[in-house]
Amino acid sequence: MKGFASDNYAGAHPEVLAAIADANAGHAVAYGGDPWTARAEALLREHFGEQAVSYLVFNGSAANVLSLRALCRGPWESVICAAQAHINVDEGGAPERIAGVKLQDVPTPDAKLTPEHVERLLVRAGDEHAVQPRVVSVTQSTELGTRYSTAELRALAGVAHEHGLLLHVDGARLANAAAALDVPLRALTTDVGADAVSFGGTKNGLLLGEAVVFLDPDLAEGFKYLRKQTLQLASKGRFMAAQFVALLEGDLWRRNAAQANTMAARLAGALRDVPGVRLTQAVEANAIFAVLPPGVAERLQRDWHFYTWDEATGEVRLVCSWDTTAGEVDAFAADVSGACRAALTP
Amino acid sequence: MKGFASDNYAGAHPEVLAAIADANAGHAVAYGGDPWTARAEALLREHFGEQAVSYLVFNGSAANVLSLRALCRGPWESVICAAQAHINVDEGGAPERIAGVKLQDVPTPDAKLTPEHVERLLVRAGDEHAVQPRVVSVTQSTELGTRYSTAELRALAGVAHEHGLLLHVDGARLANAAAALDVPLRALTTDVGADAVSFGGTKNGLLLGEAVVFLDPDLAEGFKYLRKQTLQLASKGRFMAAQFVALLEGDLWRRNAAQANTMAARLAGALRDVPGVRLTQAVEANAIFAVLPPGVAERLQRDWHFYTWDEATGEVRLVCSWDTTAGEVDAFAADVSGACRAALTP
Amino acid sequence: MKGFASDNYAGAHPEVLAAIADANAGHAVAYGGDPWTARAEALLREHFGEQAVSYLVFNGSAANVLSLRALCRGPWESVICAAQAHINVDEGGAPERIAGVKLQDVPTPDAKLTPEHVERLLVRAGDEHAVQPRVVSVTQSTELGTRYSTAELRALAGVAHEHGLLLHVDGARLANAAAALDVPLRALTTDVGADAVSFGGTKNGLLLGEAVVFLDPDLAEGFKYLRKQTLQLASKGRFMAAQFVALLEGDLWRRNAAQANTMAARLAGALRDVPGVRLTQAVEANAIFAVLPPGVAERLQRDWHFYTWDEATGEVRLVCSWDTTAGEVDAFAADVSGACRAALTP
Amino acid sequence: MKGFASDNYAGAHPEVLAAIADANAGHAVAYGGDPWTARAEALLREHFGEQAVSYLVFNGSAANVLSLRALCRGPWESVICAAQAHINVDEGGAPERIAGVKLQDVPTPDAKLTPEHVERLLVRAGDEHAVQPRVVSVTQSTELGTRYSTAELRALAGVAHEHGLLLHVDGARLANAAAALDVPLRALTTDVGADAVSFGGTKNGLLLGEAVVFLDPDLAEGFKYLRKQTLQLASKGRFMAAQFVALLEGDLWRRNAAQANTMAARLAGALRDVPGVRLTQAVEANAIFAVLPPGVAERLQRDWHFYTWDEATGEVRLVCSWDTTAGEVDAFAADVSGACRAALTP
Repeated sequence: MKGFASDNYAGAHPEVLAAIADANAGHAVAYGGDPWTARAEALLREHFGEQAVSYLVFNGSAANVLSLRALCRGPWESVICAAQAHINVDEGGAPERIAGVKLQDVPTPDAKLTPEHVERLLVRAGDEHAVQPRVVSVTQSTELGTRYSTAELRALAGVAHEHGLLLHVDGARLANAAAALDVPLRALTTDVGADAVSFGGTKNGLLLGEAVVFLDPDLAEGFKYLRKQTLQLASKGRFMAAQFVALLEGDLWRRNAAQANTMAARLAGALRDVPGVRLTQAVEANAIFAVLPPGVAERLQRDWHFYTWDEATGEVRLVCSWDTTAGEVDAFAADVSGACRAALTP
Repeated sequence: MKGFASDNYAGAHPEVLAAIADANAGHAVAYGGDPWTARAEALLREHFGEQAVSYLVFNGSAANVLSLRALCRGPWESVICAAQAHINVDEGGAPERIAGVKLQDVPTPDAKLTPEHVERLLVRAGDEHAVQPRVVSVTQSTELGTRYSTAELRALAGVAHEHGLLLHVDGARLANAAAALDVPLRALTTDVGADAVSFGGTKNGLLLGEAVVFLDPDLAEGFKYLRKQTLQLASKGRFMAAQFVALLEGDLWRRNAAQANTMAARLAGALRDVPGVRLTQAVEANAIFAVLPPGVAERLQRDWHFYTWDEATGEVRLVCSWDTTAGEVDAFAADVSGACRAALTP
Repeated sequence: MKGFASDNYAGAHPEVLAAIADANAGHAVAYGGDPWTARAEALLREHFGEQAVSYLVFNGSAANVLSLRALCRGPWESVICAAQAHINVDEGGAPERIAGVKLQDVPTPDAKLTPEHVERLLVRAGDEHAVQPRVVSVTQSTELGTRYSTAELRALAGVAHEHGLLLHVDGARLANAAAALDVPLRALTTDVGADAVSFGGTKNGLLLGEAVVFLDPDLAEGFKYLRKQTLQLASKGRFMAAQFVALLEGDLWRRNAAQANTMAARLAGALRDVPGVRLTQAVEANAIFAVLPPGVAERLQRDWHFYTWDEATGEVRLVCSWDTTAGEVDAFAADVSGACRAALTP
Repeated sequence: MKGFASDNYAGAHPEVLAAIADANAGHAVAYGGDPWTARAEALLREHFGEQAVSYLVFNGSAANVLSLRALCRGPWESVICAAQAHINVDEGGAPERIAGVKLQDVPTPDAKLTPEHVERLLVRAGDEHAVQPRVVSVTQSTELGTRYSTAELRALAGVAHEHGLLLHVDGARLANAAAALDVPLRALTTDVGADAVSFGGTKNGLLLGEAVVFLDPDLAEGFKYLRKQTLQLASKGRFMAAQFVALLEGDLWRRNAAQANTMAARLAGALRDVPGVRLTQAVEANAIFAVLPPGVAERLQRDWHFYTWDEATGEVRLVCSWDTTAGEVDAFAADVSGACRAALTP
């Protein structure tokens, strides 16, 4: 079973599995007191800067929700995000219920916040009847397959810091953005002034595992208690840590992400030439959003896994992953082409 | 590095790792829509009864806290537990903060609740100023290495149900209790009238993974939303499920637990003969609690990993795991004996 | 000090104060076990129907937040409301943090929801990654001084119930709506199919006090515990209850509300004739929203209390209360007229 | 109806009602922006010290829960209290659910904590699996009618501060303790090193109203948001504030409390002489705890209001209030005496 449903339909990269097997030798101190965890933390410092303080957690929702719990220390504080943000629409209310923060979500065409969006929400500073914005949360690459430039991120960090807010990056697909721009991870986070990052591993070839990375170590105060209390402290921590070591020690993180990106670009290139297909977002990472002629998605879904994004418009989402091959892309593009031709032929 | 620090210092059983590798083939539907998850759920029904509804989560704290979140639907409801219960002392306040329940903890000598403990806490039923008990939570085997008999569990379920309460079993080491009694898992849960179980995998040879098992399916209503919101829905669910398949398809769960128990009994037997050592609890599963002569624990800890349980009394905890060997036990017992002799010799 | 700042700038009606003094005789059972509370509850049944179950609370935020806590029993459930709803913008994040619900707010021009707004948010029913709508919350009269007709409310209740949702009415100014339409309170709540009401007293002449009224008694299950736990159980309950008795026993509720409405209509009539003033919302209760020429609001605010609603557009809010007099209205209208004339004269 | 059921069965003192009537003149800025609130805050500074920062709330549960919310800024922090503390047994789980803190309650014979109690709970400092004590909460006078001396309070503040903890005083009956010791309010709070106080008004002659008083102003940071979010911001704030002005401007607080205390002493004196009656606690404020012969409480409760405290032992609680008269005390004592004689006569 293959397809373009999601980058978490893919399995684990063989080097990741091998790292787990290597770590499975004898006893190790539980709860992160093992050498693999120390090594993973050191590698995260290499990638995000010497001041970075990192904690591993089980999944992306946890990375986001714990980041917000840590950044919003006053329960009256809120988080500004795009309406399409994963934290707003795909985490089952966890930011509100578990982190206890109100999200102030902003309608956007491309899932990208701008400094103007942020500024507009600052008018009630000091008014006890209103929540007080504390965090600007951006997703990089976004839920719509788009990407912030470093200049855009720097501008957002600037407006945030100017008003005493913090910048959080939901980086479930940060590797895809970095690979697409051919920059190191820190270029999109540390170097633009971000304060905390949810750094994704699962969608990029791990069995499971994400990291909460604080770029300002003061923000990590007490986080070990927050992680434990939020049910995200692994007892056999070496097994998550070993995966991050595999991902970050060499260039596996970039190889995996680049493959997904390249395949998305290849697929987008092929679809652009298909009459009846309209790409609805810029293809800047590993996802494609497109409107197909009526009935075409349903026909293709007999053979291929992918999701309809908007039932009203027929827009579909196509995601490539670290294991997507050119052969699959080409075969799928040919099927799309055939199905569109059939649909458009009277 | 070996020792008796904790059963989560041990790694994963080779059969578990092999199952993960086998599951790592091609794409699979995310979030539990995969065949491994279906198989794990079927096996949990085999072990806990056809009506059992199960959900996998990442760790034991999560299994407990999510069980309590599910069983206490009114936020004014409380949970009765022993003072030594893991939920009371080792989950970082998660039951209160994440599940939102008040624990009513009861001092006990052996970490075991009795029907009298429960009844004493029911006097304020209907009084809006007081929390209303809803769940009796027992740990089997307990945090002190002791064990409830089936009769004791049945009595607790009886008093609970008589007053409209539910019985939850924290079964992080349920396998150890079942192996020790040589009964199936259901004999200590389903058959005694328990309503929900946290069934542990991590301490019994998995990389990670626990199951919340509802023995009354009505209690599982809406649980899929609770699991997602509480940050416990794995995206690549097959990898946790495959481990449970390995554990439950044959008798791996029992082999692992029995080995730990057997080694604990062997160690207890050896220590009983050592002058100066006093066992403080019945050894009924895979843990031993003992008071050593002053200074002996510190000397032994230069060579062996184990925890001092009570700094005031010098009581130590010794835990055996699925990979503890007779050789290790005998070597450690010899060292204890030597250290005690040295300490007691003027 | 008088003006048009808010209906909670007004004091208590003399009949209300007299009722408190009358109740201050000897001892009374605390926590609502007194005869005044019984009488208030009976009166609320007279006004809202025999099945109505009511609980008094201290303020309007509490009435709303406790209503939502009671109606959303699953923590994964959400509340649909207008973007301008008090629960969304003026309760300091309490719905999210205290009731633990996510609000799904909808942009509207007039603070009024429609059935289409609701239906659009139902597409993810059953999807565990998304919160599940449970309540439609409308404000009557609205935060913008507009009003739902009984037909509009009935349509909203219809679409809600059709999909298993409940209709909540934030009635902080329900009396104003009922007085304006010259209907009983139940005509806008019970009779249109609403499930729960926050019935306001403070803005209508009480010292303090609101009621949570459940029109379906099943929804009140356990509410006494919720009220206590949410810190809203008054110990000397007779003093809040006596105020409700004064308000509801005769027609004080309607007299107070009608006076505020009549004064708002008088002021709106006067302002409509003032060159340079533009009313921005229909005046359907006791509030007026208007844009004044630049600088006029600031000049008037030297002598009169009222709030600028939108700094960007210069829109102001003018609220009349039970004690607003025709003399005040006319004097203020004259000042507005003079200030506008001065501002518009070159 | 009179009796000894509770000091919140009493009504409001006439001077308090008069102050409310005086404040009911014209409009006043809502939400505490009125002159009565400013005056109440100034008076609280007079009583608790110039650095004191105070906020009014509706009831005692709120004063306690908001104090704890403010003092425990990390959600992993806990509160040490006596097992009998109101926060532990009579606030419906609000500390856990609304403030989100775990209580670590300590069994005591007299509802009084000692430094040893506190120190015993500090052994797991820094251990992420355990909650971290942050607050020591004492009740003065206690739920059992006993009282801390200034030396005892100073010792508790000392041990708390030595370990980075804070001292909170639940002063629902602080006035009773101060009156009994004939000291100013600050002698039992500010001067012994307390950090925050729940200062009670309701039980001492108000209609309703309590104050959260921070003795260290840094601890009040952001509290206005917490109060609003926790549903405790009164819109017509002048009416609560005017009551505190009446209570604190002269010596009404002390007169009311002293009357209650004196009556309790009178009653205790009379009961001590009654054969069959055994006082179970020192009578140090306005409450008496006593065991009566079997059946006596039930017979007396036909004519008098008071509560049985412990059904198992037959212990009753008798509370005097600001309006208890010597005549009532003597009549009740005579009835107790008669009932005991009858019960003890074969």
